[in-house]
Amino acid sequence: MPVNYIEKTAAELPEIEGVRLFVAQAGVKKAHHNDLTLMMIDEGSTVGAVFTQNRFCAAPVHIAKQHLGNPKGIRVLVINTGNANAGTGASGRAHAVEMCAAAALQAHCQTEQVLPFSTGVILEPLPIGKVMDGIARVIPCDWHTAARAIMTTDTVAKAAHRRAQIGNHHTISATGIAKGAGMICPNMATMLGFIATDAHVAQPILQLLTEEVANASFNCITVDGDTSTNDSFVIVATGKSKQNQIDNIADPRYAQLRALLTEVALELAQAIVRDGEGATKFITIQVNGAACTADAKQIAYAIAHSPLVKTAFFACDPNLGRILAAIGYSGVNVNTDTLRLYLNDLLVAEQGGRAASYTEEAGQAVMKNSEITIRVDLDAGTASGTVYTCDLSHEYVSINADYRS
Amino acid sequence: MPVNYIEKTAAELPEIEGVRLFVAQAGVKKAHHNDLTLMMIDEGSTVGAVFTQNRFCAAPVHIAKQHLGNPKGIRVLVINTGNANAGTGASGRAHAVEMCAAAALQAHCQTEQVLPFSTGVILEPLPIGKVMDGIARVIPCDWHTAARAIMTTDTVAKAAHRRAQIGNHHTISATGIAKGAGMICPNMATMLGFIATDAHVAQPILQLLTEEVANASFNCITVDGDTSTNDSFVIVATGKSKQNQIDNIADPRYAQLRALLTEVALELAQAIVRDGEGATKFITIQVNGAACTADAKQIAYAIAHSPLVKTAFFACDPNLGRILAAIGYSGVNVNTDTLRLYLNDLLVAEQGGRAASYTEEAGQAVMKNSEITIRVDLDAGTASGTVYTCDLSHEYVSINADYRS
Repeated sequence: MPVNYIEKTAAELPEIEGVRLFVAQAGVKKAHHNDLTLMMIDEGSTVGAVFTQNRFCAAPVHIAKQHLGNPKGIRVLVINTGNANAGTGASGRAHAVEMCAAAALQAHCQTEQVLPFSTGVILEPLPIGKVMDGIARVIPCDWHTAARAIMTTDTVAKAAHRRAQIGNHHTISATGIAKGAGMICPNMATMLGFIATDAHVAQPILQLLTEEVANASFNCITVDGDTSTNDSFVIVATGKSKQNQIDNIADPRYAQLRALLTEVALELAQAIVRDGEGATKFITIQVNGAACTADAKQIAYAIAHSPLVKTAFFACDPNLGRILAAIGYSGVNVNTDTLRLYLNDLLVAEQGGRAASYTEEAGQAVMKNSEITIRVDLDAGTASGTVYTCDLSHEYVSINADYRS
Repeated sequence: MPVNYIEKTAAELPEIEGVRLFVAQAGVKKAHHNDLTLMMIDEGSTVGAVFTQNRFCAAPVHIAKQHLGNPKGIRVLVINTGNANAGTGASGRAHAVEMCAAAALQAHCQTEQVLPFSTGVILEPLPIGKVMDGIARVIPCDWHTAARAIMTTDTVAKAAHRRAQIGNHHTISATGIAKGAGMICPNMATMLGFIATDAHVAQPILQLLTEEVANASFNCITVDGDTSTNDSFVIVATGKSKQNQIDNIADPRYAQLRALLTEVALELAQAIVRDGEGATKFITIQVNGAACTADAKQIAYAIAHSPLVKTAFFACDPNLGRILAAIGYSGVNVNTDTLRLYLNDLLVAEQGGRAASYTEEAGQAVMKNSEITIRVDLDAGTASGTVYTCDLSHEYVSINADYRS
């Protein structure tokens, strides 16, 4: 059960002109489940993408990076779930190229115009025969069906839609889907996230936009601190809104579009945390008054990754010294005397110790909520950073102890 | 139940001449349990100590660092369990000094000649009245009783003894105790560790020796990656063996004594992992062929801290791609094509993928053991590093969700 998240219906996820979706039951994940997705993109669209920083990045990540630079443009995204095609060496890379070739055949384009994505178990050979058969048998679908078809340990499909006026005369739409629940500590993007918009954006500008949106969304979440081998985040801009192209970042529409897409991406990223493996609580960690953004995020991630903090939240136990300990070992040179720690609006600690006004009962009352904000004021500058995470429960251990069985 | 560790009996823990131990039931932890320990040290002894790097270090750590430099030498260590006196601000520091004053009264020395140590819950005021009463009522005890009296969530007392010839004519003894089971990722030392030896060592040399021993023992373990606010490790050298003093590191006895004390410290450090909260397996992570020791340790710690790796070991599931993923996000620039991964002597992965000779059955067979070595050969140099850790089980979540109740 995700924390305060209800799956979007198909009606809440409008199509984006210039994008067509397809799925198939390839039998990679399990029988009688859609596990193969194609996103076909009209000619003239642009695509931005960011990928995992994991050195053991998966075969499809290698191939997608190569194909992204192709001057003819991207026409298809092909995604399988059930197997990550990671830790699979040279044969894995050959399989990723075969996936692209099969998808290219369907879309009447070239192999280099396809980006491949895989998610699922690592270090097992991709059953390429099943994937190829699946690609040959895809049928059209809506965004909701596609969101379901990319799930692994997810318990709900994650999707989001926004619409806003960009520039003076045009309404721009964006619809996105994402998957992920464990092995979540994106270092460029989440496990898999795809957003399509009908905005009209030049390719280098869209690439920059994709990086900025990822930094403000998927790069602010963690479930377990494990950065995946397959993280990929893609924005497709079809240009079907018939606006003039946005071809520089000084164009005021750049910031407007960034705001629109960040809303979609942040909703998807938060949905991943809400559906974090075993999650019972959604925790926002806000660090203010830092000397720089990197310091703020480093402290927020130290708190977010502490198994002791996470189990205390699971237990609704205001054992808040564990938060101070995590701040203390974060590696940032904090002044423990000026730092203030809040739980929602409740002042917990100041001057290196428990606040005089703090009571165990007040702390307990906050801990019982399903959504809690930990706020740290450092009094060392004006930078801030926010990270979203969940608690650590018995269910997390159960899910990951039994993942492959 | 610790993993393959049997508590030492009192008879297995010989006294060290020049050291006297005392305990009391102060009622800080719970009623009718020893929770207050004094170690009195004869005049003329030297003391080396290393402390946590946590910026929120506890009040007793502040005071112990101040007192350690005192030219009259250290005569008493005073240790309470049940409350860490951390995150307690200025009043916490005053309490730590009061503990020292009370202990000094017992030992007929000055307050500055006492090192205070606390362990237990963070962010709660130390019940100083109970501590003071306890110090006034201590009774003599043996090493086994002292090892039990410093426990918190430990399920067994940790103690070790070694004896060896140092130099040509003298047999040197060392007996040590330690506590710790959770919030274990020492960044100078463990939660608390104390070793006494009858060797005769000049103070600056003993300080260096203490740092070297900590690096080869307590700084090689992790349970949950949470560096405590109270980590402290102390070596007391009473000089009662009547050897000439070791006053430089070129003295061949320096390396001999370091080997002896490292054996004691490593046994204590490994006992902490074996008794790690919820541990069902003892895991050694050995990284060889690294460009430098720091790289080797960074990779070993990335594997040791991965919740996904730890839950797979708990489940005896050879989901070994998770180890590759952890190596990949460790931050070390590894060559994934030349790297080899072994489980005990079983080759699991090479050339970026699963080894041709590897079978799931063989992996499964190794995973069923209670002691497992993960070996990574990087083929990037000649440096190596080893880290000891345990798995992540339901019991870890239970212990830490219920810690204060």
